[in-house]
Amino acid sequence: MSSSKSDRGSETRELLLVTAERLFAEHGVEAVSNRQVSEAAGQSNNSAVSYHFGSKEELILAIARRHAESLELRRTEMLAEISNSPDLRDWVSCLVRPTTQHLASLGIPSWYARFVAQVSTHPSLRERVFKEASTSRSLQQALEGMFRLIPRLPEDVRQERNDMGRLMLVHLCAERERALQAGTANPRSTWTSTADGLIDAIVGLWLAPVSSWR
Amino acid sequence: MSSSKSDRGSETRELLLVTAERLFAEHGVEAVSNRQVSEAAGQSNNSAVSYHFGSKEELILAIARRHAESLELRRTEMLAEISNSPDLRDWVSCLVRPTTQHLASLGIPSWYARFVAQVSTHPSLRERVFKEASTSRSLQQALEGMFRLIPRLPEDVRQERNDMGRLMLVHLCAERERALQAGTANPRSTWTSTADGLIDAIVGLWLAPVSSWR
Repeated sequence: MSSSKSDRGSETRELLLVTAERLFAEHGVEAVSNRQVSEAAGQSNNSAVSYHFGSKEELILAIARRHAESLELRRTEMLAEISNSPDLRDWVSCLVRPTTQHLASLGIPSWYARFVAQVSTHPSLRERVFKEASTSRSLQQALEGMFRLIPRLPEDVRQERNDMGRLMLVHLCAERERALQAGTANPRSTWTSTADGLIDAIVGLWLAPVSSWR
Repeated sequence: MSSSKSDRGSETRELLLVTAERLFAEHGVEAVSNRQVSEAAGQSNNSAVSYHFGSKEELILAIARRHAESLELRRTEMLAEISNSPDLRDWVSCLVRPTTQHLASLGIPSWYARFVAQVSTHPSLRERVFKEASTSRSLQQALEGMFRLIPRLPEDVRQERNDMGRLMLVHLCAERERALQAGTANPRSTWTSTADGLIDAIVGLWLAPVSSWR
């Protein structure tokens, strides 16, 4: 393959990724066909998605991976900075700020937060995407550091609060991203304030007493 | 109209509501057309949805209203029981348990929690549905009672934590509903335990210190 042909190939791939992310974010994963993605990306060949990615599932994993690298880099840096911090907030920060800082770097409008929210309400895709995301080494480190600083909890409660923290992060970011685009943002909708609020809330969530356990 | 014809009309209406709720919950609001709802409900007339509800938006509001009455009744009863309680948990309970108890009453599988989650990630419908839900008198009362017992917060932080509590309730219930149907439920996935966990978490969320305010 000539170099210019290969360049065109990777440009097309990039264009399909960006277009698909926006369409999935706006309309939901199942509402958008591979054909619609190809068309919206201006590809005369309607099977461009199949050619470049194979299936919709692979396309979605490729969109997620496109962001994962930046998240991983940011989180690794933050972990190095906080080192052995005894402050729970620092560890929760490492779970929240890589996402909000990455979103801030994308400008307005970004689509990534809503894309993640849509994927995470999808019955089957969510598991594959989360499974892949959860292999991140820096994420494991941040969680371990956090768990060292919170009171011992029954395993199911720990899992439950982990779910709750993740859901707050994913869906609050999606709502803020929408507000930033629509111009209905309030002072708490900037990405830095959103992170501050999420960190306060997630710390409160982990430190909340467990009232009943069955 | 003869009485039997009117009975058949309201049976069809009910069948369309139940079918649409399931399809929207499984696939998302935009992925399902009115025609698909009519067909899945076994209606030979593909415009049955238009005939009975007008638009998809009206269909969705009708599904939400179908549940709102039970929620309102449960919440009004709970508020009467707790009367003037000085315990924050009691007021948060009035925000959480009407939903979880209603979901428990629907049996397994239910679709309502996932339906709400799908609607709440929809760019335009979410506002209409939330606006209508927020006119509930008992919801107002429960929120007012809760606000009397939490420290004074800047208005934007209060709004933010209200958003966070709502997002946790909506999306955790959707995940639990899916787990109950799939048989992957853990002990914390029963509706009573889910409510216990959510109440602990939402109390923790409201009592968390505000670390920065700009």
